[in-house]
Amino acid sequence: MDTTTPLFLALDLTGVFAFALNGALVALKVTRIDVVGVVTLAMFTALGGGMVRDILLGAVPPATFVDWRYLTVAAAGGVAASLFAGGLEHLARPILVLDAAGLSLFAVTGALKGLDFGMGVAQATILGTITAVGGGTLRDVLVREVPSVLSSGLYAVPAMLGALILAGGVTLGVAALPAALTGAIVCFVVRMLGVRYNLHAPLPRSVRRAARRR
Amino acid sequence: MDTTTPLFLALDLTGVFAFALNGALVALKVTRIDVVGVVTLAMFTALGGGMVRDILLGAVPPATFVDWRYLTVAAAGGVAASLFAGGLEHLARPILVLDAAGLSLFAVTGALKGLDFGMGVAQATILGTITAVGGGTLRDVLVREVPSVLSSGLYAVPAMLGALILAGGVTLGVAALPAALTGAIVCFVVRMLGVRYNLHAPLPRSVRRAARRR
Amino acid sequence: MDTTTPLFLALDLTGVFAFALNGALVALKVTRIDVVGVVTLAMFTALGGGMVRDILLGAVPPATFVDWRYLTVAAAGGVAASLFAGGLEHLARPILVLDAAGLSLFAVTGALKGLDFGMGVAQATILGTITAVGGGTLRDVLVREVPSVLSSGLYAVPAMLGALILAGGVTLGVAALPAALTGAIVCFVVRMLGVRYNLHAPLPRSVRRAARRR
Repeated sequence: MDTTTPLFLALDLTGVFAFALNGALVALKVTRIDVVGVVTLAMFTALGGGMVRDILLGAVPPATFVDWRYLTVAAAGGVAASLFAGGLEHLARPILVLDAAGLSLFAVTGALKGLDFGMGVAQATILGTITAVGGGTLRDVLVREVPSVLSSGLYAVPAMLGALILAGGVTLGVAALPAALTGAIVCFVVRMLGVRYNLHAPLPRSVRRAARRR
Repeated sequence: MDTTTPLFLALDLTGVFAFALNGALVALKVTRIDVVGVVTLAMFTALGGGMVRDILLGAVPPATFVDWRYLTVAAAGGVAASLFAGGLEHLARPILVLDAAGLSLFAVTGALKGLDFGMGVAQATILGTITAVGGGTLRDVLVREVPSVLSSGLYAVPAMLGALILAGGVTLGVAALPAALTGAIVCFVVRMLGVRYNLHAPLPRSVRRAARRR
Repeated sequence: MDTTTPLFLALDLTGVFAFALNGALVALKVTRIDVVGVVTLAMFTALGGGMVRDILLGAVPPATFVDWRYLTVAAAGGVAASLFAGGLEHLARPILVLDAAGLSLFAVTGALKGLDFGMGVAQATILGTITAVGGGTLRDVLVREVPSVLSSGLYAVPAMLGALILAGGVTLGVAALPAALTGAIVCFVVRMLGVRYNLHAPLPRSVRRAARRR
């Protein structure tokens, strides 16, 4: 299967839209800027991960430039969030959910595109993970927050899991659609459980010891 | 026309020089560092946008490496600013003006190079915008300021306007020189008016409401 | 000589390992995160410079993806540092030494790969410098510290020196091994002397004047 199929496009554009809404809401929350600034952060967040993916694959110019749908969907998400965002105090939950949705979709599309370019399961999984965490990391650097990928709570792990399910599944002969849906859903659920129950990987020994001493 | 013409080189190198001076002055202003640090920030600022442009186009290694004039002009700008910068308290205005100059020149050279690589008007406009805001965004991230592209005041809009004028004009048959000068001047004027009168795009509804409540 | 020789791989992977340990220790020091976050910063630090180098050369997908040894060594460094890091108060010196080691090794491997792709001495030197400072700059941006490359103390200068020794030496006919070792050792020694004696390049005039006034 190639990455111009309707399935790939649908998943990828839905991820773009989720991250565009997310980026716009983050912009509204952390800083008082005009609509252009909000849409700009939306587009960085929505298109950053896919750009890094395409640059790493040598698939340049990135889909963003070749295919007008990416720019349109990203801009539309940013504008929609600017128009319809309710009170600023209610943004925390939508931000988290949309971020998890974008993370899940980009994990599987990144892995899928990696396979498509002839990568093995391990490489495609890593590429999916980078694609998934790329846009949010760029967003956090631009608004000067600690990147999600470095703060506690599972973030890179569910992305890697989702990408692995897709890459492993497709390599073993599973059709792309069920593999992608399973990977995305597992990633989303693990990420949301991580947020809900404040799960995280074990703390390093030196951190635990420092915590005990306080 | 191709991007090795004297016109393209002249515009691009002037943009590099303006951003190099700008980056060096920002370094002098925000942090107390030695000449090497100042020149380093000058080079990141001056060469960052063009590097991103060339990577997105697949024109690697970027002109920076192929053509020694880029490195020389960027380094010269950094050194010149280190030597001749007057009192630190008078840097705000030159920083703004040089930033606007670099923004304007890179908007048109980015769009021009996009056309040259076969892009349509919309894609070339976006590439010009990314080229224009790229170096300044990298600069702001490195010195840990809010990126200009996200703070209020018109920044991405004039860049997009300048790039659109060039891409649209050249596509409609206007010669490159008048199209580039018109695009750059419009970008520069809109940017400086935005700074002077603190113009910005409309504020999102939720931001306006939050502002009223205070 | 090509970049798949055992010499290149040995130097490059040692640099990856040094930066992975360094990135993990920085993560432990500046923020209280779980093992995954520590390993993630280790991998960004260890693989960032080489990724930028390969993207600039058009050697994509980067070695990171083609060659599993890079990912494995980077992850192993991150895990090892998480497991064995002693008290958090004793991390400052290892962080500095490992950073200098990674800087030195990446300066020479970056320059070597540049020569290998047909670059001249000047271009290969710049590429080596970017490779050397790239990972640490990404690390500092992600943990929101002032990038080493901009703070006082020699950082870019020793990297440039090491890269120049390699590129100049190999171009003049010196064998790769002695040229690489000499370049790396000179870079390491200059960097450590810079840290030890708080050396820096001359301060710009305006900074000196501002300092006198205080």
